[in-house]
Amino acid sequence: MKSKAVQDYYPDDVAHCYGCGKLNEHGHQIKTFWEGDETITRFTPKEYHTAIPGYVYGGLIASLIDCHGTGTAALAAYKAEGREIDTLPPFRFVTAFLQVDYLKPTPLGVELEIRGKVVEIKGRKVISEITLSANGEVTAKGKVVAVKMPEDMVKK
Amino acid sequence: MKSKAVQDYYPDDVAHCYGCGKLNEHGHQIKTFWEGDETITRFTPKEYHTAIPGYVYGGLIASLIDCHGTGTAALAAYKAEGREIDTLPPFRFVTAFLQVDYLKPTPLGVELEIRGKVVEIKGRKVISEITLSANGEVTAKGKVVAVKMPEDMVKK
Repeated sequence: MKSKAVQDYYPDDVAHCYGCGKLNEHGHQIKTFWEGDETITRFTPKEYHTAIPGYVYGGLIASLIDCHGTGTAALAAYKAEGREIDTLPPFRFVTAFLQVDYLKPTPLGVELEIRGKVVEIKGRKVISEITLSANGEVTAKGKVVAVKMPEDMVKK
Repeated sequence: MKSKAVQDYYPDDVAHCYGCGKLNEHGHQIKTFWEGDETITRFTPKEYHTAIPGYVYGGLIASLIDCHGTGTAALAAYKAEGREIDTLPPFRFVTAFLQVDYLKPTPLGVELEIRGKVVEIKGRKVISEITLSANGEVTAKGKVVAVKMPEDMVKK
């Protein structure tokens, strides 16, 4: 299962997120994996994802941290139950709280590496701490509180 | 000047932000105005800006709060100097810190109203508190610490 991202197993009816849904053709379609005890997503922004020319706009950075946080939460939930990510029932989380510190400008034109560490799992909630790096240097760090998606959010 | 948004006066070399730059044809091109003592931006997400189907994805909400915060900071800086927004030198802020509380799911398909209040102006920094509403109900609230853009960020 190591070659598959958690988003590849989101059920089709909840796989349309602009940030991380495999079925959103307009979106970023990020893919989040385990790498040791950390989670990792790699993403190369488009030329138009600019803030000041030459740098990535903060909204994209927030989006990547947000969706990496919900992906990390899902991975953590499977792991906590000792289950592979292709087993049922599936886990899907939404964001309750997001915090981003923009430490320095993030250069545009290179692949970004977003890494997460799970800091707390409690009930329906998973808290992760996340870094975003460009050229091996951390340019932003964040915190995401993700909660298991309420079942009544899915419109059948 | 009341009919113009602060983003209409961002100089062309810093008007390419995906969230709020008037010259970014791919972006959101949000427009931020004073309305009394508050700042306001209105934005209608596209159908594909989805999280779980029927709801707006959190990354867009973060982006709107982020860019509304930098716009609010610029408006506040002009006001603090008793200047109109079409006077020189122009103000342009970048985000140092962003925080978003997702209070409830934000429905897709309606215009969102983003409102800001300036809570502190100190040196190069402006802090604002922001709400995002749909159908008259606040669904997310945020805080933005914006700092005056370092002059060496602009690539000439």
